Amino acid sequence: MNAGFTCRINFSYFYRMKLVLPSKEELLEVHRAIRPYIHQTPVLSSSLLNELANAEVFFKCENFQRMGAFKMRGAQNAILSLSEAERHAGVVTHSSGNFGQAVALAARNLGVDAYIVMPSNAPAVKKAAVRQYGGRITESEPTLKAREAAAEEIQRSKGATFLHPSNQIEVIMGNATAAMELLEERPDLDYIISPIGGGGLIAGTALAAHFFGAGCAVIGGEPLEADDAWRSLRSGRIESNETTKTVADGLRTQLGDVNFPIIQNLVPEIIRVSESQIISALKLMWERMKIVVEPSSAVAFAALLSEKEKFAGKKTGVILSGGNVDLTNLPFVG
Amino acid sequence: MNAGFTCRINFSYFYRMKLVLPSKEELLEVHRAIRPYIHQTPVLSSSLLNELANAEVFFKCENFQRMGAFKMRGAQNAILSLSEAERHAGVVTHSSGNFGQAVALAARNLGVDAYIVMPSNAPAVKKAAVRQYGGRITESEPTLKAREAAAEEIQRSKGATFLHPSNQIEVIMGNATAAMELLEERPDLDYIISPIGGGGLIAGTALAAHFFGAGCAVIGGEPLEADDAWRSLRSGRIESNETTKTVADGLRTQLGDVNFPIIQNLVPEIIRVSESQIISALKLMWERMKIVVEPSSAVAFAALLSEKEKFAGKKTGVILSGGNVDLTNLPFVG
Repeated sequence: MNAGFTCRINFSYFYRMKLVLPSKEELLEVHRAIRPYIHQTPVLSSSLLNELANAEVFFKCENFQRMGAFKMRGAQNAILSLSEAERHAGVVTHSSGNFGQAVALAARNLGVDAYIVMPSNAPAVKKAAVRQYGGRITESEPTLKAREAAAEEIQRSKGATFLHPSNQIEVIMGNATAAMELLEERPDLDYIISPIGGGGLIAGTALAAHFFGAGCAVIGGEPLEADDAWRSLRSGRIESNETTKTVADGLRTQLGDVNFPIIQNLVPEIIRVSESQIISALKLMWERMKIVVEPSSAVAFAALLSEKEKFAGKKTGVILSGGNVDLTNLPFVG
Repeated sequence: MNAGFTCRINFSYFYRMKLVLPSKEELLEVHRAIRPYIHQTPVLSSSLLNELANAEVFFKCENFQRMGAFKMRGAQNAILSLSEAERHAGVVTHSSGNFGQAVALAARNLGVDAYIVMPSNAPAVKKAAVRQYGGRITESEPTLKAREAAAEEIQRSKGATFLHPSNQIEVIMGNATAAMELLEERPDLDYIISPIGGGGLIAGTALAAHFFGAGCAVIGGEPLEADDAWRSLRSGRIESNETTKTVADGLRTQLGDVNFPIIQNLVPEIIRVSESQIISALKLMWERMKIVVEPSSAVAFAALLSEKEKFAGKKTGVILSGGNVDLTNLPFVG
């Protein structure tokens, strides 16, 4: 996408929709509020990977976050934002992945009941993780419709508040705190690359760079096999994926009406990467940095490696979204 | 092994052999000397693993060390200890594992030639790593005798100095700096557990605890399938293994005459662990700490988990020896 094209979208959108962003002060307040419940995760670099990328790369390691993913930040802020009465009635979400665990743990931190709707065919290990954090599981048929219906039933019967994994401003603002911490340590970043799935992480990252960066541009990394966000930026409306055959299982979802305007305004570019680029970046990080990250995290680093000229000599942050992987089913090949 | 028995060995040995340990000042000087060439690796903990172990566990992460293992420390110190003339003639070792890479990189740091004898059937990826660090590889038949002969030939023809991966005091003192850094951060440790293979790491660790700990006892962790060190402590002489069918491939070697007296005097106990205990500790660390460590590293943590009563409520350091693993051949099962 060329710069002129991006500008045009931003301009027209801004005036058409009167997008109101959260303020810098509100973001700082969110960070203060969630801090007691989250880890300030480390920022790692590797001289070998710097050499390979021909850039100075700073990895924000949300794989070391509580429950193993950045999702903890958004979930915690969403629950902290509830009224006393709402907290008393509990929260509900449907998820077969990290957000279910995040809501369960964040709710437990505040003594709030968490109802997690999971598809009946979800892996036993994921159900066990949600239970371990005190979440109450309702099983549903493994269709989106059935999951939504089950969640709605819990909203009705318990009065529980529904939390969305990516398309809710409190969640987005919580997610922003990862990049805020990164920029606190490295205020001079030229770029931050974030994986883009449901849009909640990159929207938060873009808000953080907007308020706390010094001309820091946020770039999305997206699998070619699920490039709905890339197409959405081009078409100006939320696109979906017909197939999502990507190893980056956290990035198969599509954008939402809350995060899309933020992304349209604050994310100038999305870089798409192939499955082999994702797996090779993943292997590099495991082998060279000795950290366990999920394939979705590798998408951001793969994006950097796929456009080396763009990032040459630049200080570039990479958000590593999480590290929850099935060790018995790894995508590495000989 | 009961304490009385240990005491008896130490007592008689001490008077019989007049063991002279390196001094505290010499260890500090080694640390100062190698510091520019190594990473001060982080010390990590995990509230979940603490809960599981019922102890406060501090992991010294040598998997994040340069070239991926603590071996860098000993190799660097050994080469720094050489005279100008010796450095000019180069260094030689035989190794199919981490020590070859460590010698290659440590030598390159000082502009010294490194000749690494590797068995002809060593994996291509290991040869590539040695070459990447500038090591000059000589291939030999895959027997110990052939490897030793090839190394001797290089000593003769090049005048190169032979470096031993574990049974050389300069290497042991370099290795000691990992536990020195750990005790600098955590001076109040009750225990440090180190894996025990050739004996170079645990001997260094024991020296560090002796001089820099406050009553800190160093315990060895050893695979039941290669328990030569455990048997050596009992018999009072260096035992070897008839078979070494352990996943902890770094721990298949036996002790040497330089490190054994130090271990006899300063290591009161070795805990042996089964293969399933090693793999289950390994999986815990990958899954919960999100770090890539080699099976040998997991042996130390497995030792802790296998004797929980001993370490209950204690502040315990665990030396994670390294993180160089073949990602296409992992020991995890479903």
